[in-house]
Amino acid sequence: MRLPELNPPVRLLMGPGPSNTDPRILRAMSTPVIGHLDPAFLQIMDETMAWLRQVYQTKNHHTVPMSATGSAGIEAMLVNLLEPGDDVIVGIIGYFGQRMAEVASRTGANVRIIEAPYGEIIPPERFEEELRRKPAKLVALVHAETSTGALQPVAEVAEIAHRYGALIAIDCVTSLGGLPVKIDEWEIDAAASCSQKCLGAPPGLSPVTFGPRAIEVIQSRKQKVQSWYLDLNLLFAYWGDGKANTRVFHHTGPVSMIYAIREALRIVLEEGLEARFARHQLAHQAFVAGLEAMGLTLFTKGPRLPMLNVVNIPEGVDDLTLRKRLLELDIEISGGFGPLAGKTWRIGLMGVNAAMKPVITLLSAMEQALVEQGYKLERGAAVSAATAVYQSAK
Amino acid sequence: MRLPELNPPVRLLMGPGPSNTDPRILRAMSTPVIGHLDPAFLQIMDETMAWLRQVYQTKNHHTVPMSATGSAGIEAMLVNLLEPGDDVIVGIIGYFGQRMAEVASRTGANVRIIEAPYGEIIPPERFEEELRRKPAKLVALVHAETSTGALQPVAEVAEIAHRYGALIAIDCVTSLGGLPVKIDEWEIDAAASCSQKCLGAPPGLSPVTFGPRAIEVIQSRKQKVQSWYLDLNLLFAYWGDGKANTRVFHHTGPVSMIYAIREALRIVLEEGLEARFARHQLAHQAFVAGLEAMGLTLFTKGPRLPMLNVVNIPEGVDDLTLRKRLLELDIEISGGFGPLAGKTWRIGLMGVNAAMKPVITLLSAMEQALVEQGYKLERGAAVSAATAVYQSAK
Repeated sequence: MRLPELNPPVRLLMGPGPSNTDPRILRAMSTPVIGHLDPAFLQIMDETMAWLRQVYQTKNHHTVPMSATGSAGIEAMLVNLLEPGDDVIVGIIGYFGQRMAEVASRTGANVRIIEAPYGEIIPPERFEEELRRKPAKLVALVHAETSTGALQPVAEVAEIAHRYGALIAIDCVTSLGGLPVKIDEWEIDAAASCSQKCLGAPPGLSPVTFGPRAIEVIQSRKQKVQSWYLDLNLLFAYWGDGKANTRVFHHTGPVSMIYAIREALRIVLEEGLEARFARHQLAHQAFVAGLEAMGLTLFTKGPRLPMLNVVNIPEGVDDLTLRKRLLELDIEISGGFGPLAGKTWRIGLMGVNAAMKPVITLLSAMEQALVEQGYKLERGAAVSAATAVYQSAK
Repeated sequence: MRLPELNPPVRLLMGPGPSNTDPRILRAMSTPVIGHLDPAFLQIMDETMAWLRQVYQTKNHHTVPMSATGSAGIEAMLVNLLEPGDDVIVGIIGYFGQRMAEVASRTGANVRIIEAPYGEIIPPERFEEELRRKPAKLVALVHAETSTGALQPVAEVAEIAHRYGALIAIDCVTSLGGLPVKIDEWEIDAAASCSQKCLGAPPGLSPVTFGPRAIEVIQSRKQKVQSWYLDLNLLFAYWGDGKANTRVFHHTGPVSMIYAIREALRIVLEEGLEARFARHQLAHQAFVAGLEAMGLTLFTKGPRLPMLNVVNIPEGVDDLTLRKRLLELDIEISGGFGPLAGKTWRIGLMGVNAAMKPVITLLSAMEQALVEQGYKLERGAAVSAATAVYQSAK
């Protein structure tokens, strides 16, 4: 039996993730597999934990890439911290906040929602009003909302939550590696991210960190965690709990993906966090200058994410036609989410793609695709404007 | 900041998995990443589903690699099929059966256990006695028990379960790709496996299959599935439910691992299932001939797995000393599990390692390590015996 060879196209990935993977990471991932309890692998796990702590800017021992995608890391925070009957306040500014509420509701917790319209953020004082009205065990919210491009301040919310005796858990799936996520300085109790956005590895892992307050709550639960696979008490018997010098089998660690994220973290730290954040900001500025030169506008009102740009689709331009045209040029951008479908594009500038070449390539292709749909613009203006931003930053 | 390059040793992996990964799979895995909703990726998903159905010998549409390791696939079966108050009968012949019971208990189901001593199997009629005593919604058991090396017959149990109105779910983590797993012929309603044993890919995915009876139960649940990440109703909106021609975002598919398992399935089907099963049996026969020539014995009483051999550690030989010695030669075998720790070794002959060279290499190294501990044997007898099995099979 002859079956077709794997032969996918080579794309420029400028949607909400995965972003393109650095060849160093692909190479690391293709290293021959070793056993998940091999002493050499345990050392790789220790390095990965140590480097992930640096990226999360935390001393939290309990900092690991979980063996599933970002969504599972979000679920892990909620199922470990919540028990039936607990009160949790979930901040919703887009799809991923809604999803947190949905996942939380499956724990049997009493889910109370604070919402802001798509494209805006929730003023921190609204969490204070809600906590004053009635205490809660946990406040959960999204730091970087991938569906709307909004950057929700979380440090102020953490201060409020703690003042009212609540923990705080954040979804930083889109921000980690591209924007500061200062777990210790901001006093965040739990955070979860993914491997495939600003960290630049392939999708498949969820880096999480849990602080001492969260661990205490998890260790003193009345009921077992409803998910065996995501039970942190078991997981840290494998990754090492910081006390016992033994590693107890839980599940079989995804060796090749751990190789990949180790190399991704190594690249992040070799570049330096501040330099990496500045690179994401500069790409965003250049891209926005290019958009504006074409007369396009951003959807997001509130503080904006540099790595995820939600762009209003102009009158008369068809979403799918444009995206199909870009895909013919092997460029992927993404459509809007939920109520924003057909009205916006989501354009990622993440990891290796937060750079001049991808920005210029995309703007140039968008210009052509827009013109083909009869959209009026000044040819070359977008590329010039973006280039000028890069020139002036030199 | 300079951080150390990834540089793990190159091991011969003859423990219970991961086994060594075919270089073709490593190469496929290092293919540049594309988007998880890219039309080209959706085609790769369809191919992967189709090929996985062939390996599972089923027409079940709902056959996919889940985005987490084998343990999560086992949990997915139980949390999707069970609701609080349901009765489930779990067959336990070793650690992985115990774990199924533990995971099932976290669903709020009433878990009823049927046990056999380690190394033995459960006679199918014991399931009939238990079902006659009281009906159950589900019978769950392990096909190939990795902790004891026993092969539990499941077709007869399926017939009994159905006769009493129960579903049957099996853990075939260790058998799939190395022993027949005939989902349709045996009328198995749900099965879960892993990527890193006889399929030969790296760890990280859990191939599962769900038949029509299981899907009907899942679609008519009273409560939502307690895990959002493992909720099959949502998962098959992404993988395709066989009806609607749309793919709805659930989580971000682990693109590189899907590349890997696609290539692994391609290799399995190109070899042919029957040839692959025969190769695993032959490696087992040769290895056992070698063991016997050294005076060693197998622990397992019941029908034995070819791919996972549980070997009694002879009197006077120290477990850790021997395994450390083998690891110096870059050969990994595994210790015993739970009550068998220190008393047995677990030796895997899986995927590419179900072959003459790994068997001979291991026997030769074991011989030397045993002699170093003062164990008496006839030098060269093991290698001769194993070689003779391969010669006579030509």
